[in-house]
Amino acid sequence: MSRTHAYAAEAADAALAPFAFEAPALGDHDVRLEVLYCGVCHSDLHAARNDWGATTYPIVPGHEVIGRVVEAGANVTRHRIGDVVGVGCMADSCRVCRDCQAGLQQYCRSLVWTYDSLNPKTGQITRGGYASAMVVDEAYVLRIPPGLDLAGAAPLLCAGVTTWSPLREWQVGPGMRVGVVGLGGLGHMAVKLASALGAEVALITTSPGKAADARRLGASAVVVSTDKAQMKAQAEGFDFILDTVSAEHDLNPLLSLLRRDGTLVLLGIPPENQPPIRAIHLTARRKRLAGSLIGSIAETQDMLDFCAAHGITADVEVIAMDAINTAYERMLRSDVKYRFVIDMATLAHA
Amino acid sequence: MSRTHAYAAEAADAALAPFAFEAPALGDHDVRLEVLYCGVCHSDLHAARNDWGATTYPIVPGHEVIGRVVEAGANVTRHRIGDVVGVGCMADSCRVCRDCQAGLQQYCRSLVWTYDSLNPKTGQITRGGYASAMVVDEAYVLRIPPGLDLAGAAPLLCAGVTTWSPLREWQVGPGMRVGVVGLGGLGHMAVKLASALGAEVALITTSPGKAADARRLGASAVVVSTDKAQMKAQAEGFDFILDTVSAEHDLNPLLSLLRRDGTLVLLGIPPENQPPIRAIHLTARRKRLAGSLIGSIAETQDMLDFCAAHGITADVEVIAMDAINTAYERMLRSDVKYRFVIDMATLAHA
Repeated sequence: MSRTHAYAAEAADAALAPFAFEAPALGDHDVRLEVLYCGVCHSDLHAARNDWGATTYPIVPGHEVIGRVVEAGANVTRHRIGDVVGVGCMADSCRVCRDCQAGLQQYCRSLVWTYDSLNPKTGQITRGGYASAMVVDEAYVLRIPPGLDLAGAAPLLCAGVTTWSPLREWQVGPGMRVGVVGLGGLGHMAVKLASALGAEVALITTSPGKAADARRLGASAVVVSTDKAQMKAQAEGFDFILDTVSAEHDLNPLLSLLRRDGTLVLLGIPPENQPPIRAIHLTARRKRLAGSLIGSIAETQDMLDFCAAHGITADVEVIAMDAINTAYERMLRSDVKYRFVIDMATLAHA
Repeated sequence: MSRTHAYAAEAADAALAPFAFEAPALGDHDVRLEVLYCGVCHSDLHAARNDWGATTYPIVPGHEVIGRVVEAGANVTRHRIGDVVGVGCMADSCRVCRDCQAGLQQYCRSLVWTYDSLNPKTGQITRGGYASAMVVDEAYVLRIPPGLDLAGAAPLLCAGVTTWSPLREWQVGPGMRVGVVGLGGLGHMAVKLASALGAEVALITTSPGKAADARRLGASAVVVSTDKAQMKAQAEGFDFILDTVSAEHDLNPLLSLLRRDGTLVLLGIPPENQPPIRAIHLTARRKRLAGSLIGSIAETQDMLDFCAAHGITADVEVIAMDAINTAYERMLRSDVKYRFVIDMATLAHA
């Protein structure tokens, strides 16, 4: 048994506060990692506040984890003590279903999420990266290539792979014009990754003030979606659009921006009461509307290796553990460029 | 100048009636074909009655045309006098745009439709296959392979290629489970073609009475979409669904039938006031919603050759030219299995 220190929410209306628990025993295929940095995803906030109605308390959030291996089970072969590693949204999956067999663990019906999810192997609810340490099966632990800034690398484990997976699935690369809708945690990664993949990238935003930042991140153009003249000028100008916005928004103007055979991929789940999609966009120009969920373990590793080769990390604001509740309030106001990352060394002092 | 006999509507509320006009002069790349058979598409009825508000009268409908070449322009190389040929929805296109260059003429912005469309080469409104003869550029005239029943082959030129194109685009074949929504002119071709391509096909219908016919046409199962238990039992059971229904219908139950990475392709344009699509279908299981419009000239030829090799034609009810108005009324009641085809030899007696 190993005493683990963490920050947890004890109830939907409670602030996150110091918490301690006994870590699960180390299995033969598990590694124990000392958490160095943990990114702060919007999902953490939703789960902590029970916005989805399914939270088990106390909850220790955090699924953008960078750590160092401090102990390895008897059969561990992929990682060694001292290795810098990462953990994303997934801590395990069934490994036998059609999705797992296809290497797409993120679609497994029995996925074990990194936090707030029953792990059948331990019988315990998983606890995430707002903690001093984690125990995770080695197959769900990523190698962090040398050279990456570790704080900036943390958000790659969720925001990075969530945008990377559809960019690869739809073969984004040179010769393609790509639109990224929204410039937040996901959007800023999408701009960086799509441009590094060789595409010509435009940010599509309601905020003209984000233009300079978008260009700095790799966009060659900015389209203000509330400006009808700009949208009209860009009609049928894109091969692929990655929509990172979860708030209500009309998809039809975005579909109008696509060329024949273009694809609009949703990463968020906009509310159902937003304007219906006009089917003529799809039929008359053979356009496609699709979605995507995180990415697989293999895609996550590929993305990390790609980011190391291209010097890509997230733009982050490093915070101390005891600043997490303030950070949540700022996230609700979109006041972050572009991801908070907790320096877990600060937990000892919290 | 060549006097052509036809059936035309002179106004939106007028029945189709005998009509004669001067055919365009034969260009160097044109063939003149004697029309043998012409299928009756729902579009013919919509255009004749100005349901889309853009009809020029008099209108001679008909874009599922089987004919015999009776005259060939000086530079014609693809067809010879005496050849049995076909004409579908397209009589010409610009040939220089991105879509034409990609061999996808159906998406050309300057497409010349087979009827009721200004042909810039002749300066005349095109007239379709409810006529004794047609003049069409050889590049938009298909070869009808020997062995096909000519009346049954006529609907291949529209209903056939409209279902064939998405089946090929999404690589339907052995090992895939395919759903076809609706069993009309398009749906019955989709069942035949998808099963001939090696897929396991199920008809998805509101009409349990269509089960026997669906099985005869090639379906191995029938799912009654109004039966919630049947729909639940088939959840995530399909790789691909081709939706041939234009009337209002909720797409969410169909999306539920798709497996991870499955695609729902719309051929019709349902009204906008139908239930909105739930984005979670797309994101949580990476499903796709797409559309498709007719098919290219190359796809049409491929489909005709495939149909000849597999002995596939449409199930048709052959009618005389003067029965066209009655046929329209029956089509509005879905009282046709599964396509009316006019025997154009009857025009002489009309």
